[in-house]
Formats: sequence, C-alpha cells, structure tokens
Amino acid sequence: MDNYLFFLAPAAAVIALAFAYFFYRQVIRLEEGTPKMVEIAQAVRRGAKAYIKQQYKIVIIFFIVACIFLMFLAFVLKVQSGWTPFAFLTGGFFSALAGFIGMITATLASARTTHQARTSLDQALRVAFRSGAIMGLVVVGLALLDIAIWFLVLQRFVLTPAGGPDYAKITVTMLSFGMGASLQALFARVGGGIYTKAADVGADLVGKVEAGIPEDDPRNPATIADNVGDNVGDVAGMGADLYESYAGSILSTAALGASAFAMVAGEMAFNAVILPMVIAGIGVLASIIGVFTVRTKEGATQKELLKSLGFGINVSSVIIILGSLGAVYLLLPGHMGVFGSIVVGLMVGIVVGKSVEYFTSESYRPTRGIAAKAETGEATVIIDGLSTGMISTAIPVLSIVAGIIGAFALAGGFNNAIMGLYGIGIAAVGMLSTLGMTLATDAYGPIADNAGGNAEMAGLEKKVRERTDALDSLGNTTAATGKGFAIGSAALTALALLAAYIEEVKAGIGHILQKAGEFTLGNLTITDAASLKEITIEKFMDVLNISLMNPKVIAGIFLGSMMAFLFSGLTMKAVGRAASDMVNEVRRQFREKPGIMDGSEQPDYQQCVLISTKGAQREMMLPSIMAVVVPIAVGLVFGIPGVMGLLAGALGSGFILAIFMANAGGAWDNAKKYIEQGNFGGKGSRAHKASVVGDTVGDPLKDTSGPSLNILIKLMSMVSIVVAGLSAGYSLL
Amino acid sequence: MDNYLFFLAPAAAVIALAFAYFFYRQVIRLEEGTPKMVEIAQAVRRGAKAYIKQQYKIVIIFFIVACIFLMFLAFVLKVQSGWTPFAFLTGGFFSALAGFIGMITATLASARTTHQARTSLDQALRVAFRSGAIMGLVVVGLALLDIAIWFLVLQRFVLTPAGGPDYAKITVTMLSFGMGASLQALFARVGGGIYTKAADVGADLVGKVEAGIPEDDPRNPATIADNVGDNVGDVAGMGADLYESYAGSILSTAALGASAFAMVAGEMAFNAVILPMVIAGIGVLASIIGVFTVRTKEGATQKELLKSLGFGINVSSVIIILGSLGAVYLLLPGHMGVFGSIVVGLMVGIVVGKSVEYFTSESYRPTRGIAAKAETGEATVIIDGLSTGMISTAIPVLSIVAGIIGAFALAGGFNNAIMGLYGIGIAAVGMLSTLGMTLATDAYGPIADNAGGNAEMAGLEKKVRERTDALDSLGNTTAATGKGFAIGSAALTALALLAAYIEEVKAGIGHILQKAGEFTLGNLTITDAASLKEITIEKFMDVLNISLMNPKVIAGIFLGSMMAFLFSGLTMKAVGRAASDMVNEVRRQFREKPGIMDGSEQPDYQQCVLISTKGAQREMMLPSIMAVVVPIAVGLVFGIPGVMGLLAGALGSGFILAIFMANAGGAWDNAKKYIEQGNFGGKGSRAHKASVVGDTVGDPLKDTSGPSLNILIKLMSMVSIVVAGLSAGYSLL
Repeated sequence: MDNYLFFLAPAAAVIALAFAYFFYRQVIRLEEGTPKMVEIAQAVRRGAKAYIKQQYKIVIIFFIVACIFLMFLAFVLKVQSGWTPFAFLTGGFFSALAGFIGMITATLASARTTHQARTSLDQALRVAFRSGAIMGLVVVGLALLDIAIWFLVLQRFVLTPAGGPDYAKITVTMLSFGMGASLQALFARVGGGIYTKAADVGADLVGKVEAGIPEDDPRNPATIADNVGDNVGDVAGMGADLYESYAGSILSTAALGASAFAMVAGEMAFNAVILPMVIAGIGVLASIIGVFTVRTKEGATQKELLKSLGFGINVSSVIIILGSLGAVYLLLPGHMGVFGSIVVGLMVGIVVGKSVEYFTSESYRPTRGIAAKAETGEATVIIDGLSTGMISTAIPVLSIVAGIIGAFALAGGFNNAIMGLYGIGIAAVGMLSTLGMTLATDAYGPIADNAGGNAEMAGLEKKVRERTDALDSLGNTTAATGKGFAIGSAALTALALLAAYIEEVKAGIGHILQKAGEFTLGNLTITDAASLKEITIEKFMDVLNISLMNPKVIAGIFLGSMMAFLFSGLTMKAVGRAASDMVNEVRRQFREKPGIMDGSEQPDYQQCVLISTKGAQREMMLPSIMAVVVPIAVGLVFGIPGVMGLLAGALGSGFILAIFMANAGGAWDNAKKYIEQGNFGGKGSRAHKASVVGDTVGDPLKDTSGPSLNILIKLMSMVSIVVAGLSAGYSLL
Repeated sequence: MDNYLFFLAPAAAVIALAFAYFFYRQVIRLEEGTPKMVEIAQAVRRGAKAYIKQQYKIVIIFFIVACIFLMFLAFVLKVQSGWTPFAFLTGGFFSALAGFIGMITATLASARTTHQARTSLDQALRVAFRSGAIMGLVVVGLALLDIAIWFLVLQRFVLTPAGGPDYAKITVTMLSFGMGASLQALFARVGGGIYTKAADVGADLVGKVEAGIPEDDPRNPATIADNVGDNVGDVAGMGADLYESYAGSILSTAALGASAFAMVAGEMAFNAVILPMVIAGIGVLASIIGVFTVRTKEGATQKELLKSLGFGINVSSVIIILGSLGAVYLLLPGHMGVFGSIVVGLMVGIVVGKSVEYFTSESYRPTRGIAAKAETGEATVIIDGLSTGMISTAIPVLSIVAGIIGAFALAGGFNNAIMGLYGIGIAAVGMLSTLGMTLATDAYGPIADNAGGNAEMAGLEKKVRERTDALDSLGNTTAATGKGFAIGSAALTALALLAAYIEEVKAGIGHILQKAGEFTLGNLTITDAASLKEITIEKFMDVLNISLMNPKVIAGIFLGSMMAFLFSGLTMKAVGRAASDMVNEVRRQFREKPGIMDGSEQPDYQQCVLISTKGAQREMMLPSIMAVVVPIAVGLVFGIPGVMGLLAGALGSGFILAIFMANAGGAWDNAKKYIEQGNFGGKGSRAHKASVVGDTVGDPLKDTSGPSLNILIKLMSMVSIVVAGLSAGYSLL
C-alpha cells in the first residue's frame, strides 16, 4: 500500500453513512401530523415492507442458486476464483440494504413532508430533500465501503508468485461483487416497476374512469397500493439501480486500470486501480456539501426552487472537477489526459440530461406537438409519441459517441488502446461521482408525490396539496437530469465492462491452465501462466477473433439486439397481466361492498397490496431468469466472440430502446399535463381523453421496461464476466 | 469463359421477360367491364402515372447529383473504377422500369379482375395472379439481364496485368449497380409508403369517421388517391424493394466468390462468381413453371385457394433445390457444402414466414389476445400490440442466427472464413431464387384489393365484392410468406454486403496505390499492387482493426442502431404530416361542395391525388438523403472500422425493428378484422373502436417505416461499398 489517498474512499463512505444517520435523526424527530395522516403513512409503510419482504424471499432463492453455481465454477470446474461467490453475495446484500433503507426513509418522510407543508414550503422542501439525500448517501456510502473493504481484504490474500498483490486478479474478482448488485437491482427494478404500474393502472382504470372518483381518493381500494408502488418502484427500485451503476463503473474502471499498467511498475497499477475509488470518495464529500446548500424561501416560484436545486448540483460538480484534477495529478502524473476524460464524462451527462428535458418537458415543441395531435384522436397521439421518442434518441447517441471517442482519445487511447478504455471507464466514474447529490434530487420526487397523496387522503386544506404539488412538479424536471446521468453512465459503464470482459477471459484461462496445463486459443497454444501474462491485450484480442467478420460475433449482435426487444416486450406484457388482476379486484370490492362509495364501508386496501405484490413477484421471474441464462447459454454455444457480440448488440439496441421508451413515455405524460393546464380544450375535452390514452401507454414504457433495460445491459455483462472461464473452456462452436 | 452454364442466366432472364409479355397480352385482351368501371380504373391509372412521374423527376435529380459525386470519386480522386457511375445509373434505371411496368400492369388488371369476378372466382384469380406474375417476372428478368450484360462487358475490359479477367475488380464494380437499385428502391418505398398511408388515413379519418360513409365510397374525395396508393406503395414500392434485394444478393455473393477463390486457379473463381447467377437463372425457370400450376375452381374455399398457391410455391421450391444441387455439382465440385447453405437459406425463409403468420394471423393466440384487450380500451390494445411485436422478434432472430452459422459452417467457413461468408451469400440467393413466383403471390394482393374497390365504386352486385374479398384475404396470408423471404434475405444479404465491403476497401486501396505509390494501414505499409494482392483477407481484417474493442467500431454500432430508430421516427412523422394535409383537403371539399353527399356534385379526386403526391415527394427527401449521407460522413470521420460498426449496428437493430413494426402493425390490422367478424361485440362495439385505433397506429409502422428499413440497411451498405476508397484514403480519425 503505497498511497494513502486510497483511504479517502472508505473514510468518505463512513462520513456519508454518518450524515445519512444524522439526516435520518433530523427527519424522524419531526411530527407526522394528524392521526389520519399517521394512519395512512403507516398503511403505506406496512404495504411497502410487506412487498419488499416477499421480493427478498424470492431474491434470496435466486441468490442461493446463483451462489451454488458460482461455487461449482470456482471449486469444481476451477474456472473462477474462490472469492467470487462471497463477493457476489455481499454485492447483492448491500444493494438490497441500500434500497431498503432508502424506501423506509421515504415512507417515514412523506407524512412529515405533508405536515411541514402545512406551515411552509421551505420546511417541506427541506424534509423531502433531506430524506432523498439519506437515500443518496446510503447508496454511495454502502457501495464505496463494500468496494474498499473487499479491496483491502483481497490485497492481502491474492498475491502474485513474487508476493505482491495481484491487481489484475483482485479487480476481476471484485467484479463479481458487481454481478450481485446488478442481479438484485434487476429484481428491484422489474418487480418494483411491475408493482407500481399494476397498481397505478388498476387504480386509474376502475377508480378514475369507471367510478369517477379523483386520484388518491381514500374510497379507491387500490390507492394505498398505488402509493406503495411509488416507494417500491421509484425509490427502492431506483436506489438499487443506481447502486449497481455506481459500483459497476468503479469496479470496471479499476479492472481496466490494473490491465493498463500491468506491464509497468506496481505502484502505477495500484494508483490506477484506486483512482476511481478516490474520485468516488471526493464525489461523496462534494455531494454532502451540495446537499447543505439546498434551501428556499416561502412562496418561491418553480424557477427559484429549480435554481436552488441546480445550485446544489453545480456546487458538487465544481468540487468534483477540482478534486479529480488533484487526484489525477497525484496518482497518475504524466497521464493528465485522464482528467480530460472525467470532464468529458460530466459534459455528456449534462447534454443527455438537457436533451431528455427538451423532448419530455411541456415547455418545448416536441411535447406540445404531441398534445396538439390529441385533437385528432388517440391514434395520432400514439403515432406522434412513438416517432418523437424514436427521433429523440439521436442527440443522446451522438453525445455518447462523442464522449466515447473523446474520453478514449484524451486518455491516450490512440497510442495505447487499453489506456483509452480506462479513460472511458473513468468518464463514467466522473459522471456518477456526485450521485449522492443527484440521487437526492431524484428520490425526493416520489416523496413529494406521496406527501401529496397523504394530504389528499387525509383531507387536508387545499393549500397543502398546492405546496406538495409544487415540490412534485419540480421533481419531474430534476428527474430529467438524473435520467441523463443514469443513461449516459450506463452506456459508458457497459462499454468499460465489455473491455473488462477480455481481462476476465484471461483470468479464466489462467484458472484452466492451472488445471489442464495447456490451453489452445485460435492458433495460439499457451502452456504456462507466465507466457499467458506476457500476451499483450492487443495480441490477445487478435487471437480471440472478435472482429465483425466472425459470424459468431454477428450472431451475438443479433441475439443481443433481440434480447433488448424481447425483454421489453415481456416486461410490458407482465404489467398488462398484473394490472388486469388489480382491475378485477377493485371491481370486486366496489361490487361486493356498495358502501365504499358513500363512506359507510371501508375498502380493503390490504387485499390490493397483496394482489400487486403477488403479480409483481410472479411476473419478474421470467425476464430476470432470461437475463442470467442467455449470456451463459450464448457463451456455451458461441464462445467468447459470441458473448462479445451479444454484449455489444444489447448495448447498442438496449441503450437506444431505453431512451426511446423513457422519452416517449415522459412526453406523453407531460402532453397530458399540458392539456390539463387548459390547452387544447383542457380537462374533460376530447383531446384530454386522447392524451390520457397516450399517458397510459407510456406508463409501462417509461417506468418498467425502459429503466430495466439499463440494468439488463449491465447484468448481462456482469454475468458474462463472471462465467468467462466457463465460456473460454467449454464452448460448443 | 470456360463454362457455358453462365448463359443460363441471360437466357432465363429473356424467357422471363417473354413470358411477362405473353401474360401481359393475355390480360390486356380481356374486357374492362362497364363504362363506370373503365372510368374508375382510368382515374386510378392516371393518378398512379402522375405520381410516378413526379417521383421519378425527383429521383433523377438525386441520381444526377450522385452520379457527379461518383465521377468525382472515379476521375478526380481516383478511388473508384471509371465504370462505377454507369453501372450505378443502369441499376437505378432498371429498378424504376421494373416498378413502373409492374404498377401499370396492376392498374390495368384491377378492373379486368373485377369484370372476371362477375363470372367466376377461378377466372378472377387467374387474371389477378397472372398480372402479379408479370411484375414478378419483369423484376427478376430485368435484374438478371442487367447483371449478365454487365458481367459480359466488364469481363472483356477489366483485366489483370496477366491479361485474364480480373474477377475481384469486376464484381466489386458491379456492386455499384446494386447501389443504384437500392437508392431508387428507397425512394419508391418511402415515397410510396407515405403516399399510400396519407391517402388511407385521410380517407378513413374524414370519410369513415366524420362523414360516416363506407370504405371505397365514390363520394369520398380521397378514395381514388387511396386506390392509387395501393398501386404506388404496395406494387411499385414492393417491386423496387425486391428488385434491389434480388440484385444485391447475387452481386454480393459474386464478389465473395471472386474473393474466396482469388488464390486458386482462375476457373474456380469464374465458377464461384457465376454460381449465384446460374442459381437465379434456374429459379426464374422454376418460377415460370410454378406460375402455370396455380388455378382453382368455382366456390373454392379459402383453404383450397391457399392450397393452390402453396402448390405453385412448392413446385418452384423443389425445382430450385434439384437445380442448385446440379449447379453446385457442376460448378464447384468438392464444395458440395455450398448446396447445404442454399437449403439452409430456404428453410430460414420458411420458418420466418411461418412465425410472421403465427404472430399476425387472427387464427392464432397473439392476435386474438390483442383483440381481447380491445375490451378494456385503446391503451391496453396499444400496449399489447407493442409488446407482442417486440416478443415476435425472437423466432426470426433465432432462425437467422441458426441460418448464418449453418450456412457458414456448411460452406466450410470454420476452415476458411471467406468460403463461409460466400455460403451466407449463396443462402440469400437460394432464398430469393424463386422470387418470380413469391412476388407473383405478393403483387396479386393489391390487385385483388383494387378490384374490390372498383366493384364498390362502380356499384356492382354483392357477389362480385365477395369474390374479390375472398381473393384479397387470401393475399394477406400469402403475403406473410413473402415477407418472411424479404426479411430473411435482407439480413443475409446485408451480411454478405458487409463482407464484400472488405473486398471493396482492398480495391479502393489499389486505386489509391496507383496514385500515391504507398498506403499505410495500421502497422502495415503497402507499396505496390502485387503485395496488396498477396495480403490474405484474414490478415487484412486484422490490420483494419474491426474488433469490438476498437471504440470506432463501437461508435459505429451506436450510430447504426440510432439510424434505424431515427429513420423510422422521421418516416412516421412524415406520414402524420402528409395525412394532415389530406384531412384538411377532404374536409374542405365536403365543406365547399355540400352536394357531394347526395350525389349532386362530383368530388375533386384529382386534387386529393395531387395532395398525396406533393406530400410524399416533400417528405421522402430528408430520410433518403440521410441514408446516403450518413455512411459517407461516418467513413470520413471514423474510417473503415466506424463504417463496419455502422453497418453491423444498423443491421442488428434495423432488422429487429423492422420485424417489430411489421408484426405489431399486422397483428393490430387482423385483430380489428377478427372483431369485425363478430367477436368481442363485433362492428360498432367499444372493442371495435379501440381496435380501429390500433389498426391506424399500425398503418405507418407496417406499410411505411418497417419495409423501408430493410432497404435502408442495404442502401447504407451499398453506399459504404461504393465510397470505400474515400473512407480508406481520407478519414479524419
């Protein structure tokens, strides 16, 4: 251990957790309001806990099966390190823990936000935002702490023959930690996404349309389930999602760092490995400072509120830029271009975020155009939303392409390819470094949303709902920025993982060599670990034949593209089925308990919560299993080139399909809101009816299938990485 | 010229054209029916001619510009052969001619089919089917003739230093013929697709919904435009589309044949080059025989009609299998595996066709499921259609992947990669060889459709419309098979073009060498043509660095995937805009000529024809320009690896997006028909209304954007091939 800068990472992680606890104490100390408000909040909290418990039960079974499989790889086939199954488990455990803490905090914060909104807007913003920050800090704190601890442990035990730490092996082993995080994130996103949309659609179709009662009306049996959905989908799901993005970007970059400096002195390799962790550590501190700068005054306009949040984000960004300049200077002197890569990463995130905002905000032409089309009916709204969503993919793709080439070139990739790939990874780390802050602005949205629901159900005065609505609508805009970072970082991280895959293949061959004594790859026969080590990464890529003219690569690209579409189709169908169950249940309650409508009978909220829970559980299985099994199967049939093609195809199509779905859904949502503001006839008009159809179509696209795709891409990469040795040693073709 | 089997190709082409003329005389001799029927047919014919004239005016300008650009490449930059601009022009010219003849025949045949339907079903089927066969035979005849003539000419003039024909150069030059065909096809598909859907949507929205008059009612001002649309979109557009598929598969395979046997004796190279042409020639003869076997008897059920068409297709298939067994045996003895590739190609076409039928026919669960969802409203119909479309991509992708690997392996690709790629090309040729027959069953659909329109507008007895409806609905099922072949062959051809691209890059470098005397590629410096020739294709691919770890390749994959989405979004928007113009015009006529509804005033059909024509013209420009400019721009910025990535990305995403759009659109269409048959409440029910929305959303997806994507993929490949020398010599990065 030559450089004590490393300890910035665990230290920052601990500080983040301490602040999260401090904020938690602050929030918990506040009053929850009237008995009715407390009762509603409790019902939501109970429902959320019940769902999470059920979800984790299923996830645990999956993790046990996966763990046994990894042990089989490690101890029977001996194509993986023995540390892998345990790293995998902790990744999943901490991801689940981060999501759980974030979600519980959110359910504790909503009634308190409502209560504060009875006095002042500023107080309400502070509660909601600080609660969001708890989630943000817990996610980055736990991720960074786990990474740092594993690094310290493995550094002591995984050694080269010469006795020093074997950074190549250490970093690829740690990637299996990322697989745990990704697998748990996929369940959280898919399950949570199905839950929330089934409840939402069920509540709307029967409650709003058939019974004619307003949103969040306490007479609607599905209303608690709907509010639970916001917490399990938008909070717990998103938390787990960004936890895996964050961990994935740091881990893949560390692996590439070890590889880039494998041939140089040990110190540089160590420095390159810890650089992403150090930058993440600085980012955590920057986020905490940023959180403290967010405040507003009573009667603040939307613009002022936005400015307040924007100021916090900007403060964090400036700190991270200065901090990473210092970190690169201290750790990788002579490679200052790497700092350029970080700046490129941040810029890409901002541009993608702005483009998301342009295409989905009702302040701009695309969304207003969709609203205008509502006047000629449902079909034209849908066609225009679909085409707008497709066209909206252009700017993000162009930014990512510029970012890839820019980060690669600045880090010196055109002279040394692996350095360039390291640059791409570090760009993703830079983009995600202030996640503590951006996630706070993201998680705060559903808290404000729930606070509004609480105000409505508790029958508070109009003023309260107005204040929570102001907070909520603000959340929609800041969410666009958050989405930009999530999407952009997913693409860059997936690319870094693709590069790290090659490293893991090398490690896998190393394991096979120890067992078999010889390994043949193309026209190359390797007989010992020393000669394997000497093969440069360029030579290795040549031998692997991952060129576009290899039909296995092309087959992989086709299969990867298909996976993105198939997975989206399956998750959309799942929402449809789960929503049908909910519709039937709500209809049954209205039919069997006629007293619900006049308030003489209590609806059975619990039953609706149960229906959504069961539906989400049942439906999340098939898509999730597919995401794990397909990369293994492709590896067993088509070998390494097929897997590389699969990942590249899934990345290309999946990334674009995800933007298409997110933007089409967001634009339809806001086109409806624009009409509800009184345009094109306003609420109740023909155009409004058509725009509601658009919004409903967009719901599963933007809240279930779209966000899950980002995780799918990375989970498939993670699975491929962990089973690389199997694909290298046992493929059919 | 060692093998006279070659002459089978031009001979078969001439026979095909002779039979087309013979059928044309047969059709033209028949009566057109009542004066009213003649008048309507004339109006449609006039409209179609007027549109095509306008379209060709624009296309000619594009061709002149492109031709000047190609001359600049050939004579100023000297990175292309001087033959290229002329081959390019003939490709476009013959494609346009084939589409024109097919369309004129279709407009001549519709009233005659109606007239025959007044007497018997069998007679009507024969007229419609023979007219479709004219189109099929003209397409294959002109394509094969043009290819054969160019081959004969170039063989005499393009020689190696030793004096023999230089097959590598000859075949890559001929590929520019394919670029001409593709460019004209894109205009025909996009322009025709926008025309037909603008007219269709305009006629439906105002006529059916607002005025409440039935489909094809003569009082609807857009009804003639709607019928014209079937001819310019479904006939001329499809003809040009399959012309370019057919030519593209033969040309790319010939280029790969020259490359595969470049190092062997000259005779084998010649044989490998002519094999695709010979197989196409046998296919033409098989198609003619197949056409003659199609007949039916009066009162035949749908099933019997289908059996009759199926019998014709089977006869052709058996002949082509036996014929190509012989051809491979005679031309490439010792490479009988190539015959296996042909069989694989045919099988993939059949499986893809069956899967299209399963997902879009109302006889099966997916479409019935969408119809059932119509009971809960528009939103659920749309969501279910979108997800069904996405899920339906799985089987075609798995078949194509199996086909790629199978054709590659059988042709010996795992020992000699270039032979394997040749096998993939020849699989596409085999799949398309009976195009004369399958296109006849395709083109016959719109003729029967128009015949029904004619019967309706001319006010003929109900029996006639019933007969034409029987023919029309039959066409929908056979069209699924046709689509399977079109989609499958597009994927295989695009892959063959990707491989041929490498050849063209080599040729481009050859041109640069003649000028500059030296060329550096990666770490390789080439100083003379002889040493260039000696570089094996494998070595060449290595030097090009088209591995998935090259960020330029990844950037290209992102851009290619984006192109598929952006292009689809733009064409969908275009349909929306052109349809709005039509809606306004029809509304204006109903407003200003109140006598239209009671028959006292004549609607101005011509004005609607003009509106659709103008809209299609205006809107087809941007997407078409993009398809040509983007590959050139990517080549200039990212060089060869970027272009390869672009093509692979566009292939992966575009292929899958095309299937998604075609199947979702087809399933919505038939779900509506299923409800109209009396299910879920039948016509006029709540479910029917929702299913109409689904059908309208599907229209631009399945008839404009989806089919254009197949051409886009190949046009981008063709453009890249033709400008390969430019990308090799002048790229920025």
